[in-house]
Amino acid sequence: MDNLLHPVFAFLASGSNTPAYLPLALLLVFGTAKLLAEIFERFGQPGIVGEILAGVLLGPSVLHWVEPDQLMASLAEMGAMFLLFRVGMEVKAADLFRMGGTALAVATLGVIFPFLAGWAIFESLGHRLTVSIFVGAAMVATSVGITARVLASKGLLELRASQVILAAAVIDDVLGLLVLAFVSSFGEGDVNIASLAVTAALASGFTVVIARFGAGAFERIVPKVEAKLSISEAQFNLALIVLFGLSLLAVYIGVAAIIGAFLAGLAFSQTATKRVQDLAHGITELLVPFFLAHIGLELNLADFARKEVLWLSILLLIAAVVTKLIGCGLGAVRLGRNDALRIGLGMMPRGEVGMIVAQIGLQMGIIDRPVYATVVFMAVGTTMLAPPLLTWAFRGTIHAPPEEDFSLG
Amino acid sequence: MDNLLHPVFAFLASGSNTPAYLPLALLLVFGTAKLLAEIFERFGQPGIVGEILAGVLLGPSVLHWVEPDQLMASLAEMGAMFLLFRVGMEVKAADLFRMGGTALAVATLGVIFPFLAGWAIFESLGHRLTVSIFVGAAMVATSVGITARVLASKGLLELRASQVILAAAVIDDVLGLLVLAFVSSFGEGDVNIASLAVTAALASGFTVVIARFGAGAFERIVPKVEAKLSISEAQFNLALIVLFGLSLLAVYIGVAAIIGAFLAGLAFSQTATKRVQDLAHGITELLVPFFLAHIGLELNLADFARKEVLWLSILLLIAAVVTKLIGCGLGAVRLGRNDALRIGLGMMPRGEVGMIVAQIGLQMGIIDRPVYATVVFMAVGTTMLAPPLLTWAFRGTIHAPPEEDFSLG
Repeated sequence: MDNLLHPVFAFLASGSNTPAYLPLALLLVFGTAKLLAEIFERFGQPGIVGEILAGVLLGPSVLHWVEPDQLMASLAEMGAMFLLFRVGMEVKAADLFRMGGTALAVATLGVIFPFLAGWAIFESLGHRLTVSIFVGAAMVATSVGITARVLASKGLLELRASQVILAAAVIDDVLGLLVLAFVSSFGEGDVNIASLAVTAALASGFTVVIARFGAGAFERIVPKVEAKLSISEAQFNLALIVLFGLSLLAVYIGVAAIIGAFLAGLAFSQTATKRVQDLAHGITELLVPFFLAHIGLELNLADFARKEVLWLSILLLIAAVVTKLIGCGLGAVRLGRNDALRIGLGMMPRGEVGMIVAQIGLQMGIIDRPVYATVVFMAVGTTMLAPPLLTWAFRGTIHAPPEEDFSLG
Repeated sequence: MDNLLHPVFAFLASGSNTPAYLPLALLLVFGTAKLLAEIFERFGQPGIVGEILAGVLLGPSVLHWVEPDQLMASLAEMGAMFLLFRVGMEVKAADLFRMGGTALAVATLGVIFPFLAGWAIFESLGHRLTVSIFVGAAMVATSVGITARVLASKGLLELRASQVILAAAVIDDVLGLLVLAFVSSFGEGDVNIASLAVTAALASGFTVVIARFGAGAFERIVPKVEAKLSISEAQFNLALIVLFGLSLLAVYIGVAAIIGAFLAGLAFSQTATKRVQDLAHGITELLVPFFLAHIGLELNLADFARKEVLWLSILLLIAAVVTKLIGCGLGAVRLGRNDALRIGLGMMPRGEVGMIVAQIGLQMGIIDRPVYATVVFMAVGTTMLAPPLLTWAFRGTIHAPPEEDFSLG
């Protein structure tokens, strides 16, 4: 498809050393994402799907104009961090804890079912045990960014189902971390149970302590610190430092940076002024399209030219949807059928966590390129299916118009 | 100085492939910049200088914790783009044109004097003619970002001197482009006058047309387009697309991306709502510290261990300050001594444009590493001297407190 590489864009391929690279990449990704979002919304479809498709269009699948390089990956990750930070600010930690039991059941069953499905499919096709286990592991972790964006843009974060999803997504990430640590050590030949236990305890402790005590502590401390500072926009600058700090701590402990960002938002949920929320909103407006488009950039449609890869990918995608729906739905069954369905669909997107597991497997030489492609297809597919299905599942609950201030769309 | 590399940060040196790299780099650069800004402001010094020093501290000069890689350079350039976009929104294009004659004299004399000084110093030290011309060329172009930030943070953009500085900086950049085109072709052995003339005409035409007609046209067009769009925050998204688009166009024509960003801001100056300005302000709060710290990251103090390099650097720095002061001051002499001084100081920072010229010379093999280091010293030095000197020169004019909305500090 290299003949589509128009001369104007040809130097993009030559790397990032020309002065035009940055403004061109920003214009192409942001402009295309917003254009497709506009077109999708005109036809009553979720704009998010258009923004992901912008990445498919610009990336290695079709036009080859933008590569998922360090800059794009970093802007995407910053977009996800600021998105979860904003969502955390909108949520009350107490509500999450009230839903704790249900969320634990949702997260646990939502990990077990997909793992078994991924493992069983590859086992039955005659793959080696290590391959099957890696695919199962890649099916596990929910990536809550997409769901958070849908719920936030429609003003649905207050609903019981939304709060179960957010709490379950945090627990799910800790479980996903353990699965990741397990398969990583698996590749090395021995599994150290003691080290897994320490990781689990650290990650759980970090999460619970900040979720439980962060908001109250910050409500007392932040205004005092702020009053002593000379720099302008002191509270906003403090919030950014806490955001980066907790994201880093989360990574050191072993969970995803966006979980730290979510906890930073939670910690500021009772403190942040309207101005801090507005300033953070400006950053999410800039960066979230890069997060969405980057999902599409990761896909390479050329991988699916072989029919058996395509069919296996579709099978894995269906299994990924159905098993989260059944697993998470069972965990939430006491909330009634409607909420169980909403929660199952909200936990469906796998996003980047599944891709990271697959990349580790690829680097270790355990899985090959076609298997990697099927996992990426599953991750991107669940992410693109979530917005329309969530919009449909929540259709009865949208009474009030979305808050103007938080219309992330 | 590698022994300062604490194990916690050691993996920074191993590149950007670990999941901790992004949050750690964000935390280190942003956190250190704001910490030093706070300390400087406590002692009545400009916070900006602290933020530049953060880069010196974290970079190759002292700690080696952060390298000026693609990510840092991109965040820095985005910071400069959004800063100039915000400044453009605050300025009335008509005011700039009213100051056009003075600005032209300021820019022209402010290019001639530094060029001659750089050339003369290196010529008198016995360097080859090509080396002297490259150093002269690197002394030419004002980098208006720092000055814009000082003036904006103190609410001084409305003043006559500020408007001359902004208009002259745009003209200066077009002249700097011509000098750059000249020395680049110089290296190839022949200078194509016709191609230089086309470049000059294109760059001037682009700038004048947008500055003259942009704001009026956008005032009519943007509300109509906005009304037809379905996506949320439509005006802000439009503004970002215009910002990236004009930045790119500026680069294609040959001037710096930040000139395009400034023109985009000018075009929106009569249209942008308070909300669009607030959202853009959130982005500048995040990104401008990276722009400032990156200036410090570019410096490597180890280059100045040799005494003759250090002395030559100091001499070049003094020449850079004095020649802009005299050249630009002469151009503005009809506005009186105070404004001439303010304008001369405001045009002093060379920033990244001087470094780009020096890098080209380095890559062409025309200048060597010590000469490159003296140019970087001059560029960083003029940038760090500007904030305190500007604060001093404008001290009598600060009547009103800075607008809360635009306190970029």
